Amino acid sequence: MLSIYKEYTDGVKSMKIIKSPKEMTDFALEAKAQNKTIALVPTMGALHEGHLSLIDKARSSADVVVVSIFVNPTQFGPNEDFDKYPRQLEEDAKACQERGADVIFAPDASDIYAPDASTYVCEESISTHLCGKSRPKHFRGVTTVVTILFNIVRPNIAVFGEKDAQQISIIERMVRDLFMDVKILRAPIVRDSNGLALSSRNKYLDTLERQGAARVHQSLLAGKRLVHDEGCTNIDRVKALVINHVTNAKTRVIYVDVVDASTSLPVQTLEKGKCRISMAVWYGQTRLIDNILI
Amino acid sequence: MLSIYKEYTDGVKSMKIIKSPKEMTDFALEAKAQNKTIALVPTMGALHEGHLSLIDKARSSADVVVVSIFVNPTQFGPNEDFDKYPRQLEEDAKACQERGADVIFAPDASDIYAPDASTYVCEESISTHLCGKSRPKHFRGVTTVVTILFNIVRPNIAVFGEKDAQQISIIERMVRDLFMDVKILRAPIVRDSNGLALSSRNKYLDTLERQGAARVHQSLLAGKRLVHDEGCTNIDRVKALVINHVTNAKTRVIYVDVVDASTSLPVQTLEKGKCRISMAVWYGQTRLIDNILI
Repeated sequence: MLSIYKEYTDGVKSMKIIKSPKEMTDFALEAKAQNKTIALVPTMGALHEGHLSLIDKARSSADVVVVSIFVNPTQFGPNEDFDKYPRQLEEDAKACQERGADVIFAPDASDIYAPDASTYVCEESISTHLCGKSRPKHFRGVTTVVTILFNIVRPNIAVFGEKDAQQISIIERMVRDLFMDVKILRAPIVRDSNGLALSSRNKYLDTLERQGAARVHQSLLAGKRLVHDEGCTNIDRVKALVINHVTNAKTRVIYVDVVDASTSLPVQTLEKGKCRISMAVWYGQTRLIDNILI
Repeated sequence: MLSIYKEYTDGVKSMKIIKSPKEMTDFALEAKAQNKTIALVPTMGALHEGHLSLIDKARSSADVVVVSIFVNPTQFGPNEDFDKYPRQLEEDAKACQERGADVIFAPDASDIYAPDASTYVCEESISTHLCGKSRPKHFRGVTTVVTILFNIVRPNIAVFGEKDAQQISIIERMVRDLFMDVKILRAPIVRDSNGLALSSRNKYLDTLERQGAARVHQSLLAGKRLVHDEGCTNIDRVKALVINHVTNAKTRVIYVDVVDASTSLPVQTLEKGKCRISMAVWYGQTRLIDNILI
């Protein structure tokens, strides 16, 4: 039985699990006083190989690797899956330790948000598109909690996965606009053998469904082929093909769009190597997102 | 002639004027590497004795005093006085130097805001009251620029004047909610011999008008007397007295309210020593605010 919130050692390497923001900041300041650099991997837990690849990237980029595990209430809408979102701190801690993390920062929601908390960080351009349309306060929750985590953990570097490409674009914009001293690193999407992008929400799917959900990635590949093999530069045609390819009785499109690969903003002209097809679907009761550089 | 943006020495003490955010951060990091503490006095320039008292407080609280001078466009509404707001950097620099500031940070707006800047810090509770009602995006501009200044200047301490009591409450809330590592100090209102609270906007008034505008403070004193001398605890009566006292052909009330002295939120019961009467008026074409602890 893992002793949560204490030093965690099982012969591989010592790893701390810290719950208190104050203790986390003290740890960070001590590391910085020793001229160590800190890389943060912000997660909501339920770690999969995608998250672990972020830890690898953090591990090779800084002296100290902090993985935050926090199912952030403010980024869920009122009818979303906050309550059923998977929570498995012990399993996550084991995976983090094996991958060489130094600290897990796992605060309670009450450690992060005062009952009368009323301050938010809002990105108001990029966040109005794509997932921002159907999840109106989602990105406000993300930018707010990432700001809080940055202020507590004091990272030099933070690593985010490109499955959430729009999220990275928004965080890069926030860091630039507010002069935050954190370097944002992007890590590529990790997929299962069928091509399904790894996501903690894949836990909602059984084995057969995971095979079926692979059609999301297949539709993106079809869109990319249309551009690269047939030379199509008509954005409407690319979108229509992807929508047609993915839709079936179980898979309903929320959006498919062609956006700038860096900013995630809509583009008027499709330039190979500089654009991304981004999409979200309902696969049964599960919301899935994916994207591909084209 | 003062050589702006260079080392500024005239025999009293050397003071730097820095325009570039990067240079400002480099200066701050160097000071911190020498274990020096930094106090920031954020201003929009047109410095008066009120601002200078903030510099005094900063001077006695930290090793390095930075005064930022930046007429922040995002805190002005479309029909407000951004264009005519007084700008007098040379005079301000002289005053700062005489008062012992180490650095003036005076960026251009284009140094602070990218053309496509889209990230804001928003306080959504306190800022909806008092001045927030008639200046709907004002406090969003304030919290955003203060966050940016904190991230550039890296202060341990920041000093704000209590004339803008609601502003201080909002900044204290923001600092708490977002885990910013800055201690906020409050400095009392400085008044002229007639009682008029010092404000850069008093420059819009001639001598006679400044005498007339003193009725704002007098009305607050009348409200305070009603509470302290007559034992009145009825908030409506206090507000009515102040409104009646201040209103004349030239002075039109925007709001008068009794609020919590610390949070600036409306109160239901008047507790002596814990409340503040806050008010804003149009005095001719000039918007004046003032408040008093009761």
